[in-house]
Parts: sequence; structure tokens; C-alpha cells
Amino acid sequence: MDKIETYRFTVEPFHVDFTGHLFLGVLGNHLLNAAGHHSHNRGWGIDQLNERHYTWVLSRLSIELEEMPAQYEHVEVETWVESVMKLFTERNFLIRNADDGRTYGYARSVWAMIDVETRQPSNLLEVKDGDILRYVLTAEEKPCPMAKHGRIRLAKPAILRTVPTYYSDVDINGHINSIKYVEHILDLFPAEQYKKHRIRRFEIAYKAESYLGDTLTFFWEPSAQTLADGLPQEEQIEIRKQVDTPERPAGEVVVQAKVEWE
Amino acid sequence: MDKIETYRFTVEPFHVDFTGHLFLGVLGNHLLNAAGHHSHNRGWGIDQLNERHYTWVLSRLSIELEEMPAQYEHVEVETWVESVMKLFTERNFLIRNADDGRTYGYARSVWAMIDVETRQPSNLLEVKDGDILRYVLTAEEKPCPMAKHGRIRLAKPAILRTVPTYYSDVDINGHINSIKYVEHILDLFPAEQYKKHRIRRFEIAYKAESYLGDTLTFFWEPSAQTLADGLPQEEQIEIRKQVDTPERPAGEVVVQAKVEWE
Repeated sequence: MDKIETYRFTVEPFHVDFTGHLFLGVLGNHLLNAAGHHSHNRGWGIDQLNERHYTWVLSRLSIELEEMPAQYEHVEVETWVESVMKLFTERNFLIRNADDGRTYGYARSVWAMIDVETRQPSNLLEVKDGDILRYVLTAEEKPCPMAKHGRIRLAKPAILRTVPTYYSDVDINGHINSIKYVEHILDLFPAEQYKKHRIRRFEIAYKAESYLGDTLTFFWEPSAQTLADGLPQEEQIEIRKQVDTPERPAGEVVVQAKVEWE
Repeated sequence: MDKIETYRFTVEPFHVDFTGHLFLGVLGNHLLNAAGHHSHNRGWGIDQLNERHYTWVLSRLSIELEEMPAQYEHVEVETWVESVMKLFTERNFLIRNADDGRTYGYARSVWAMIDVETRQPSNLLEVKDGDILRYVLTAEEKPCPMAKHGRIRLAKPAILRTVPTYYSDVDINGHINSIKYVEHILDLFPAEQYKKHRIRRFEIAYKAESYLGDTLTFFWEPSAQTLADGLPQEEQIEIRKQVDTPERPAGEVVVQAKVEWE
């Protein structure tokens, strides 16, 4: 079995923003589908792992794009496993135009495997006798020319928004869907910012789960560096749940993200 | 060219709700994609009409389901045109399982064509010399066994929620996306209601456009008839924009909808 899986999609009319480009959240969803097909076709799909009482948990996702696919364009996503450690595995993505082959960009992700009952991490090198190592393509064999996930650290964040969570926010497990966090984060920025700039790099780190009914508070910290028009070049976001509740006034960190504009 | 177009999709993991069934908004999106393929392949796509300065506007959508497709199921949507009048055309849908052929349900929609500059309705029988009539399949030729769109009328509605609109809500034209209204409406109902009941029929009527930055107020009126546990069997929703602004205290009606539970 080839170590690379190719996943194809077309940019649908309802999946583009007001600039005519694919919503980053929809791209994220396609990447997760590509990952799902790759792992399923190699015996490591969530459905197959569930029989062994394991499941995959997405820990980090970083996307870096020269260009965002536009309406009606045909896109190909290649995905492969770059490394496997005891508790984490790195999965990379290449995103390109299916017609002329030009590269839109790359993505990196980090996954853990947990026991569905204890929610404790499992040793990836022991599950199925290390079978996963058969699929590794090292950085030398298949380069992914973008920086690895950086550190996200907010020193003096301001509260930008507090949002309740509803029916559409949650997945089959009752958790707030990984992609919905991306949408809520992108909704923090005003239309003007999207008219003048585009997101060059987006990083998200999933720290804890949140559930239907949780209240999410969005903390924000812009970089000192600005673009020519004075808007911040980089913005860090931290989502905490149940902020200001008597038991836990600072809330609990659920997600951290960093957005780089150009 | 066949009068029926068949569109296929698989129910993706991130497109199901916490019961494991396809989100109704995602189904709506697939129906609109099916409609787009049908009309494009017959020379009536939005891209082709744009050259003539026309575009399609969705006026009503009603979906009635015996069963909602579940995660990983393969779905086929058939779509065809049932009738064409001067100012409106009716397009129907059949939704079935692609593997065993069982019918999930049906949908009906009503569309107008407008001039992109004047925003005035066009005469569908005159555009392209009535070419659209070649594609009509009457109710006798291809039945769509569900009631047509009903009347939605709220007598004494209560305000349930007011929501701002953000970047993710709008489409390429800067209008709030037809499907996003569906999601916001479904988000009005508590998790408990989805655990006990399912939506048998959903109707939505698009009355006016709203834009990024508009504030939407959701009015609600339950039916007197209830289900065995006392929850309303039917709920009517009206979305108005800019309620309580000095110029227009009652706001402007943007969308009306009716949800039937079972």
C-alpha cells in the first residue's frame, strides 16, 4: 500500500467566503477527511480502532498557504505520516490544484491515540505490534516545507467575545467540533481585515474538550509587529470555557491559536 | 439530455450531529449543489446566467424525511424541474440511500430569476426563448409525494434570541448564506429536544436579504398541538433584521420557517 493517500474535492459555492476563496474551516474539514481516508485504508481508521477501544485525538493543526483555493477550483490533498513517537504521530498534507498542479500550500498535524474508556493516551508503538511504522515517510523522503507548530503564549490577553455553544457546534461525541473552533476564531476578525489581507498561516492547539452548553470566552493578543496599514501581523487567541464561574474564575483553556496575516 | 440529474455524496464524520445523523443544514447544502449541477449541465447554471446578467434566487425550500442519513452512508439526490411559471420555477428532490435504494425523503424548492443589476425578477419563459421548458417533468411524470410549501404565519411570537452576523455567515455576494439561516434556526432548540424527537419536515421561506454585520432577531411561536411529552409538535420561526432600530422598531422580515417534530 502506497504511503501517500490523495483526496480530491471541488470548492463548492457555499464553501467560499465573500472574497470567493474557500473558508479555512472548510479546508480544515477536507484535511481531516483526507486523514480519515488515509488511516482507514491502512487499517488505522477510527472505526477500526473503536473495535480495539482506541480513538484518534487531534492535538495540533497548522496550515500555511501561498494561495487559498477559489470557487469551483479542483483541489488535491496528499497526506502521509512523517513520524511516530510513543504518544504522538505527525501527519502532513500537501494541497495543490488538481488541474495545473500548482501548490496552494501545506499543513501539519499532531495526533494522539487514547483509550476510549479511560481517556488515557496509548503507546502508538505497541498498538497492532508497531504496524503504523510501515507507513512513515520521513522528512527526507517527503519534505513538508513549512515550519513546525510554534509556541502560543499570551502574556496580557484581552477578552474579545463570549459565545454560547449550540446544537450545530457539536460532533457525534457531543464535543465541540474541531472545525467549529476555527470558524468561531475567524469570526472574531472584521470584514475590513479580510478585504485588505489574507491569512498566510493558521495554527491551532487543542488543549481540552468542551461540550454542548459550555460558554466559550475568546482572549486575544495582537503582535507588536504590524502590517503597512497598522493592523497586527499576528494575532494569538485563547479560548477558555466557563470563565468567571465561582469554582474556577479564570476558566479552563480549551484551545489556543495563532493567525498570521499578509 | 436527461431531465433528471443525480448527485452523490457520503455522510462525512464532521457533518453529523450528536445523534450520528446528517445535519439538516448540510443536507440543504447538498440539495443546492445538486440543483447547481442540474442547471449548469443544461445551460442554466449561475455562471452561465451571469453572462446574461441574471442570477437564481432561492425563495422557498421544504424538506420532508422519513429518515435522516447517518454517518458514512452513501446518498443519492435526484433533482428535476416540476414546473416553470413566469416568475418562479419549482424544483424537486428525491433523497435515497445509494446502496440499498431506500428513500430517505423528498424536498421541494421555489426559485426566481433576477437581473443582477436592477434586482428585479425576470420572465423565465422569455429568457433563452423558453429553453427551460424542455426540462420540465410534471407531477404526473415524476411524482414528489410531499405537500407543497405551506403558509407560515406567526400571530403572537416571542423573541427567543438575537444574534450578530460574522464573517462565516456570508456567501460570495456578501449575503447571509441560505444554509446559515437553517443552522441558526436549528440552534434555537435544546439538546433534549433532539434526543427525544427528530425533525420530520422543515420549511423555510427567504423574504429579504441580510448582510454581514446585520443583527438577526429570532421570533418563535409553538403550535398548540403537542407531542406525548408536552413539547410542541410544530414551531414557527421568523427572523427579522435590525429590530428596535429607531427608523424601523419592528425590523424587517428576512426569513420565515416552520419545523415539524415527531
